[in-house]
Amino acid sequence: MPYFDYNATAPLADCAREAWLRVQAEHWQNPSSPGRAAARARLRLESYHEALAVLLGGEPSQYVFNSGATEGAHAVLAHWAGQLPPTARIAVAATEHACVLAAAGRFFPGRIDWLPSGPGGLVPPAVVTAAIAAGAAGVVVMAAQNETGVLQPWPEIAASCRRASVHFLCDATQWLGKLPGAGLGSCGAWLIASGHKFGAPKGVGFVKLPKPEPDFRTSGGGMQQNGHRAGTEDLAGIAALTAALVHAEQSQVLWESQRLAWKDRFENDLLRALPGTRIVAREAERLWNTSLILVPYGEQTKWLARLDKIDLQLSSGSACNQGQKGPSHVLAALRLPAEDARRALRISSGWQTTEDDWNQLLSGLEQVHEEIRTGT
Amino acid sequence: MPYFDYNATAPLADCAREAWLRVQAEHWQNPSSPGRAAARARLRLESYHEALAVLLGGEPSQYVFNSGATEGAHAVLAHWAGQLPPTARIAVAATEHACVLAAAGRFFPGRIDWLPSGPGGLVPPAVVTAAIAAGAAGVVVMAAQNETGVLQPWPEIAASCRRASVHFLCDATQWLGKLPGAGLGSCGAWLIASGHKFGAPKGVGFVKLPKPEPDFRTSGGGMQQNGHRAGTEDLAGIAALTAALVHAEQSQVLWESQRLAWKDRFENDLLRALPGTRIVAREAERLWNTSLILVPYGEQTKWLARLDKIDLQLSSGSACNQGQKGPSHVLAALRLPAEDARRALRISSGWQTTEDDWNQLLSGLEQVHEEIRTGT
Repeated sequence: MPYFDYNATAPLADCAREAWLRVQAEHWQNPSSPGRAAARARLRLESYHEALAVLLGGEPSQYVFNSGATEGAHAVLAHWAGQLPPTARIAVAATEHACVLAAAGRFFPGRIDWLPSGPGGLVPPAVVTAAIAAGAAGVVVMAAQNETGVLQPWPEIAASCRRASVHFLCDATQWLGKLPGAGLGSCGAWLIASGHKFGAPKGVGFVKLPKPEPDFRTSGGGMQQNGHRAGTEDLAGIAALTAALVHAEQSQVLWESQRLAWKDRFENDLLRALPGTRIVAREAERLWNTSLILVPYGEQTKWLARLDKIDLQLSSGSACNQGQKGPSHVLAALRLPAEDARRALRISSGWQTTEDDWNQLLSGLEQVHEEIRTGT
Repeated sequence: MPYFDYNATAPLADCAREAWLRVQAEHWQNPSSPGRAAARARLRLESYHEALAVLLGGEPSQYVFNSGATEGAHAVLAHWAGQLPPTARIAVAATEHACVLAAAGRFFPGRIDWLPSGPGGLVPPAVVTAAIAAGAAGVVVMAAQNETGVLQPWPEIAASCRRASVHFLCDATQWLGKLPGAGLGSCGAWLIASGHKFGAPKGVGFVKLPKPEPDFRTSGGGMQQNGHRAGTEDLAGIAALTAALVHAEQSQVLWESQRLAWKDRFENDLLRALPGTRIVAREAERLWNTSLILVPYGEQTKWLARLDKIDLQLSSGSACNQGQKGPSHVLAALRLPAEDARRALRISSGWQTTEDDWNQLLSGLEQVHEEIRTGT
């Protein structure tokens, strides 16, 4: 059953399952307990912190494992709000994930400046520099957009923020596992991520602090993770996340050009096969796995139901926006009329996607197009 | 290797591992995605909400799965603080878990009244009634104490709070899986719990709302779990938690009397074998698995190191208090001198504990007692 919804979640990677089972069998003790068995669990935990630092950069102690990017966004922006003056404003890209926008709205109510974006939602570094000059105390721009796949120039944005000693929150959820993560941990950003987007179990992710931040505290109680997040560590989940990221960095991200070629061919074939179809932000630099297409006619829900019937799993956009009324805020930020946004389908492939899956997807889209066109 | 630290964490239950693996294999899709596969994952999620309601009471939609009790304590008390007038005070038992105290301190700074407790830290319902009469807008008393095992009269406390329409937060973390949970979900309490204390994986737990609370929002973003907690649900972890709790309720809690008999015999034998040893809150109603003992001499760290060398795993108290200076706040609340508290060892058995484990523990304690007494 061809699956094209990897940006919503990925199946569990084999190496992640193995790591999870091994820790549950051998290191299930509470890392905060006394004794040698718990000490071995603590050493394991430290080794996962170290692995992330090796892969992404920065210091091991600056990685704080948590339940995922939604928790991370809230913890980071709550921390900023607690540290900054009560009038401080932050500059946020309008295409951020819903959880980042929700956290920004909760902790900086009425104190958000929207970063003007160029074609495809791209935030040019000059825009960030201007926002900082205008007084922004923090900047929020994701690494890769979850609906369109557009890549933001995070290294340059990070450099601007570093120079001005301004906070930078970078949601790396869709970047990690798909593109090399080196540098994300050492660019000075507050990183957030969710492991399940790259083959780890759901419910585990991390925050990367830009530097020692003794007062950063997601929750209080125990002194777990250097006091940054109280609560017994999910060591098995953390092991699985680390295994999945190591695997991705060592092999998956290297296949990028092959996969990019398949996607490009699919996009070209699609535009020929379904006249009137558009690809959102086609000219922008995008993830190798993501195509947000606007079909020529018919509501996305109708398309998705018919595609699902022929075993093709894709989506209309962010899974996290399900149940919310109206078109995607991302497409609205791209100044796409609501009328157009209702014809959007998100195609996000993954590491298990085969050439045959792409062919099935293309012929499935052709079939549904024909059905909808002829009203059958 | 006899393990007597179940109150810190329990090994993964077989049924929990199976449930986790099954969901990772069959229902790994994002429950918020479109299509039939995601719809099946959503149905599964609903079935876990329903299972908890059947086991514990209340409505399925009032269960909010999260990452554990630490998150739960913060989410509930943040919600109370947001809903109550800014001068509202809460009445809190001094023997609550560190995460509950931390959350209370964060969201009700300077607005906490300590509930006076009787012998063993017991909070008599009359004390709660008096606190409510004195104006407390919320009451915080756990179901079973994690260090001493003392059981609180939560049904009566819940009734007092219900009558007065006052919030009641009940940390059920140590009760669930050890004693029947029926009624905890229907007593009107805000429940919090962590699954790993009863055989589920770490990193998954839940909040039970006392009634529909549309504004309760752990985090914003997606509309997952009726909008109560944004972020992709950890369906595999939730399945494992549910399986572990079903198993506990259907079989484990029924063995209580056998296990209580073993513990009682152990306590009697211990008092005979190690003259001068005391058992904290011995006269109080306690969990069948927990004995907090004060050894006659020697620091707890010395005892634990020597016990660990002979493969006996126990602890000095709450694992979450590791790394914090000074004696346990729980023992201080029981008016135990710091001098005595430093001789405390927590023995918490579990469902896999055998009679032979108890015998090994007793002879191990005798051996270490002799070593420390004679300075060898």
